[in-house]
Amino acid sequence: MTETAEIMKVNPDIQKERDAATIDMEELAVIIYGKEQLSKKRKLEDAVFNDPDYKCVPSAFLSREEEYEEGLRKSSLAVLKQSKLSDLIEDHKDIMAYNSVLASFGYPSFGLHQTMFIPTLERQCTSEQREKFLPLCYDYRIIGTYAQTELGHGTFLRGLETTAHYDPNTQEFILNSPTISSIKWWPGALGKTSTHAVVLAQLYTLGKCHGIHPFVVQLRSLDDHKPLRGITVGDIGPKMGFGPNDNGYLKLHKHRIPRTNMLMKYSQVSPDGTYTKPPRSTLTYGTMTFVRVLIVHGSAIALAKASTIAIRYSAVRRQSELRPGEPEPQILSYPTQQHKLFPLLATAYAFHFVQLAMMKIYTDVNDQINNSNFSRIQELHALSSGLKAFTSWVTNAGLEVCRMSCGGHGYSQASGFPRLYADFTPSCTYEGENTVLMLQSARYLVKCVRDARSGKTLPGTVSYLSEDVSAVHSGGSSGRDLSNLDFLISLYKQRASNQVHFASDKVDRGISAGMDLVGALNSASVHLVSAAKAHSHYFIAKTFVESLKLLKASSELQNVLHQLASVYVFEGIAQSSGDFIEDYILSGSEAKTIRQLAVDLLPLIRVNAVSLVDAFSFRDEVLQSVLGRYDGNVYENLFKWAQNSPLNKTDVSSRSSIFVKHLTVRCAFLAEHNATMLNTNII
Amino acid sequence: MTETAEIMKVNPDIQKERDAATIDMEELAVIIYGKEQLSKKRKLEDAVFNDPDYKCVPSAFLSREEEYEEGLRKSSLAVLKQSKLSDLIEDHKDIMAYNSVLASFGYPSFGLHQTMFIPTLERQCTSEQREKFLPLCYDYRIIGTYAQTELGHGTFLRGLETTAHYDPNTQEFILNSPTISSIKWWPGALGKTSTHAVVLAQLYTLGKCHGIHPFVVQLRSLDDHKPLRGITVGDIGPKMGFGPNDNGYLKLHKHRIPRTNMLMKYSQVSPDGTYTKPPRSTLTYGTMTFVRVLIVHGSAIALAKASTIAIRYSAVRRQSELRPGEPEPQILSYPTQQHKLFPLLATAYAFHFVQLAMMKIYTDVNDQINNSNFSRIQELHALSSGLKAFTSWVTNAGLEVCRMSCGGHGYSQASGFPRLYADFTPSCTYEGENTVLMLQSARYLVKCVRDARSGKTLPGTVSYLSEDVSAVHSGGSSGRDLSNLDFLISLYKQRASNQVHFASDKVDRGISAGMDLVGALNSASVHLVSAAKAHSHYFIAKTFVESLKLLKASSELQNVLHQLASVYVFEGIAQSSGDFIEDYILSGSEAKTIRQLAVDLLPLIRVNAVSLVDAFSFRDEVLQSVLGRYDGNVYENLFKWAQNSPLNKTDVSSRSSIFVKHLTVRCAFLAEHNATMLNTNII
Repeated sequence: MTETAEIMKVNPDIQKERDAATIDMEELAVIIYGKEQLSKKRKLEDAVFNDPDYKCVPSAFLSREEEYEEGLRKSSLAVLKQSKLSDLIEDHKDIMAYNSVLASFGYPSFGLHQTMFIPTLERQCTSEQREKFLPLCYDYRIIGTYAQTELGHGTFLRGLETTAHYDPNTQEFILNSPTISSIKWWPGALGKTSTHAVVLAQLYTLGKCHGIHPFVVQLRSLDDHKPLRGITVGDIGPKMGFGPNDNGYLKLHKHRIPRTNMLMKYSQVSPDGTYTKPPRSTLTYGTMTFVRVLIVHGSAIALAKASTIAIRYSAVRRQSELRPGEPEPQILSYPTQQHKLFPLLATAYAFHFVQLAMMKIYTDVNDQINNSNFSRIQELHALSSGLKAFTSWVTNAGLEVCRMSCGGHGYSQASGFPRLYADFTPSCTYEGENTVLMLQSARYLVKCVRDARSGKTLPGTVSYLSEDVSAVHSGGSSGRDLSNLDFLISLYKQRASNQVHFASDKVDRGISAGMDLVGALNSASVHLVSAAKAHSHYFIAKTFVESLKLLKASSELQNVLHQLASVYVFEGIAQSSGDFIEDYILSGSEAKTIRQLAVDLLPLIRVNAVSLVDAFSFRDEVLQSVLGRYDGNVYENLFKWAQNSPLNKTDVSSRSSIFVKHLTVRCAFLAEHNATMLNTNII
Repeated sequence: MTETAEIMKVNPDIQKERDAATIDMEELAVIIYGKEQLSKKRKLEDAVFNDPDYKCVPSAFLSREEEYEEGLRKSSLAVLKQSKLSDLIEDHKDIMAYNSVLASFGYPSFGLHQTMFIPTLERQCTSEQREKFLPLCYDYRIIGTYAQTELGHGTFLRGLETTAHYDPNTQEFILNSPTISSIKWWPGALGKTSTHAVVLAQLYTLGKCHGIHPFVVQLRSLDDHKPLRGITVGDIGPKMGFGPNDNGYLKLHKHRIPRTNMLMKYSQVSPDGTYTKPPRSTLTYGTMTFVRVLIVHGSAIALAKASTIAIRYSAVRRQSELRPGEPEPQILSYPTQQHKLFPLLATAYAFHFVQLAMMKIYTDVNDQINNSNFSRIQELHALSSGLKAFTSWVTNAGLEVCRMSCGGHGYSQASGFPRLYADFTPSCTYEGENTVLMLQSARYLVKCVRDARSGKTLPGTVSYLSEDVSAVHSGGSSGRDLSNLDFLISLYKQRASNQVHFASDKVDRGISAGMDLVGALNSASVHLVSAAKAHSHYFIAKTFVESLKLLKASSELQNVLHQLASVYVFEGIAQSSGDFIEDYILSGSEAKTIRQLAVDLLPLIRVNAVSLVDAFSFRDEVLQSVLGRYDGNVYENLFKWAQNSPLNKTDVSSRSSIFVKHLTVRCAFLAEHNATMLNTNII
């Protein structure tokens, strides 16, 4: 390769892959996004990425302060720009779509203002409060965040320590952080950006505690942006990912706010301090569930991005020599590389169809709730909890497999992987810690087993728990078609059912042995987590296979998507074969056969691998990965990218010349000067 | 908790754990390190951490440039300090120990000078070259690195493109980077620090290529540290981990060096250009193996650190309420948390004993090599390759499990986890990419199977491959003691043997079907990787159990270490139960029993969990984790830590006041000014 030739055009190795594909990439892209949404997505991306105002050096080269400032600059610009794009941005959905394009640069500075602060006010304000607060929010005259988590309190809402004592004399609430562990900690944009926050605090009035309630608290002056008296706010310091965001802390020192700053749509405190409790306690269910559905979607996207980067780079990267004299093969041709990447590619597709199905269930149940039918709330909660945990765990591990499949360059920030992982991994913990969510999901499944035993009918996604599946299958019996996906899905069902019943029996035995339900659940919790995983896995495999049956696609595309579904289903069994064989759902030799079926599919998938990731339609500006470039021109662009390193601003970095020069003459400089001078110098 | 009380003393929850332990932490620490080494380690740590010259704000708050400069400052200081610690630093081993303490601050700037540049010169210089170069190196008058990897070439040494053409007219070599993919890329300290490098290049003389040879190339002037003519060097930009290090690139433009800068101990080019080849080609085997043994050790240490942080924090962190009114339990008491952490704690101990055993084998084989006995080189290479890959993969995943077990705070740089992971994870790729190493290990195992069939005797660690293990065990037969570790180890042996034979048969079938050996190995590579994993797993489990038998320890400590070994052995089976059942080594119900045995052990291990991590004896300065503090005072110190954030230097960050203030008045500022001005402003 000569320098000029390789810069000019698409890398021939990746072009060859595209030319040899048997599927139409555009047909698949339309299936993934829908025709109109795909067109809208492309227009919005043009609007953002072709706009020179948004240009900046890659964030990897910015200091934390620069990242923060650059994020604020882009987010402010976006507010302006959106108002001028009326042909493209017609409704709230378009604004969200525009913002999600912006998020390619990093989490937007006003993200929580838009997704948590405003929606909370919209849902929980009285009409007077709406009139007072919402116009300020919509016009960005105030910027808010949502302050729930505390230093010592995450998952367990009732454990929050921040207090709001009502003082009837002044008709004010006194907000206070009584301990160090009660300091609000983590809320996005709390440290430096927000002027206001919804603060969750224990409400005390007339000497009695009424539990957690939301209060609107002004944090900073609208004149000079300085924190108000009684307010200590700051940045919690660097963390994995979310570099531009000032996740913050908030310490309240007997800070007074008007009575009318408690959000009073559901609970009220009257001027004399009388407390009125809300009509229902489960009203916030909907939001939590919605966010979890979004995380399932986020998992699908993150895994799709990682697959895109790894598969494209594997197509242009050549390494090692199989036989002397032959050219080094493309990495993508190695069976071990295919075995790493293609099951993950299939998983990205599986999660895509699952998030669609999950969103549909969410919408259906929400419609029912709006018609005062609450019968499926628990099912929805359990399903979304399990899927959020399952998909984020699998994605979290999968991103790292993709990164490590790219050799040394995967570790460079130029690959895009370090940021992709750092930005994704928190979703295993936020909006419900995964193990806690799995346990919540499992408790519902155990309850379903009991309901079924007492003759109740179980709803949609758990109805199989009342079937007697043990009689249906027996490992190793003759005439079983191990490549038939419907048949294999029935094995996933049997496995899930077995695991749920096993955990449920374990709970029952605990109770028989004298434990209370809480103790019995706790002692069975390792098995409960396994059961909830098996349930989620069954739902995902089943949804993937069933979704493909409903697709309108060309027969070749159907064929290729069926290969992906097959690899997903086969590999799921291969990786947990013990679960299936322990209970005689499969025989040992059947498990071996299925493992081999997965391996045998890999070369078939390879034919379309690049087109299958191209169809995700991530622009280079979205992937932000030199390895994952559409044109495959990786090495010359890695070299270009590195020129941005601040260390390369000068040939000799000022301090290194001093240190190195003097070190080379036996540390004369350091010996003569007081070394302490140097460290105070640097900090 | 009041503020003052919690700052003053050790957190009572963690103190309670230490008080209730049944083992003597110090007895265990002595077993881990040896009495003298433990004492030396503590003295060296005192020398470094009690020295105010080394103090600095946590690296998480430094910009990349500051990190680089601070690293250079500490490394320069260390050169000075070591020369003044003659009572403590007596030999090369002590210097290495001192440097490994220093590495707590980040990879030392002169790390490759000490571990790669100097050793390469020592091994490959002629006596004249030694006299010329080594005194300069020892005195730090020149600083060197080792430049092998290129932009497009990692694992495969023969594929390197850098050329060294000999010119007999001037008696010089002309070094050149003919393509972009041939630019040297990644070597540590290459970008800004090093004055010299050993450069690996394809040697051409008298019109013929003689393959890869090492050359000493001066990169920068010793006067002003500027790059020499014909040399382009720079920093490759930020990557995961190794922030202070200037991993660099090097582009050579027909750069001339004297003939005598080729390292000529083994190969020579005479003034007229005549080439003399080296007597043996496997002379570098030893170094590669040694570095891999060090990575096994590094895996043990990283997992021990992560376990320490996660278990200590789990002892002081209380979350959720099992029963209304009861205090929130310590996280460490939840079975799901124990199930995450204790198998990893056991793994850290397993890897510790394995690295000791591996180092002993290395030393033994090396002694044999020095006596011209090369019979075990291949065995050593295969074992070290498999163990390097196995332990680094397990550790890599384990670090993330530990991090995610700490809730939201695990994501903060304050936890120490993000840096621990970022600094560790490259070891899955460097010094041999893990999958490639597993394949190398597997190829040796396949060769052993052939050797055994042709009647040859197999050496130590692979001799079991000639046993007929299939007859020994049969899953589900009566009288099997599933808690007997020796018995279970024999099952690991059977599994490894089965997998190796299965992969080997697969290769043979490929050959029978007309493939050449290379093709047959490639098509069986997924199975070969599994086989090498099973082989490594067997060696580790066996070594752990056997090492404990040789320990001189109190009976209670023996008892507790036996619990750890049991959990390691049980969980290894539980997590790969399919492997064991598919081949009828275990029955399904036996696998279930073993899984339950692991769960049943968790509450027993919990009693000593904190002492088991205390025994690793990591000082707070080494862990650099607010969550893993010995005194357990986490929350007040998280708050203190965050105060270092550069964003907290002022109450109102300069730019946020401009943006936010003007945004609050409907973006008037942005509307009036040209937005482009702003982005050029910031960058």
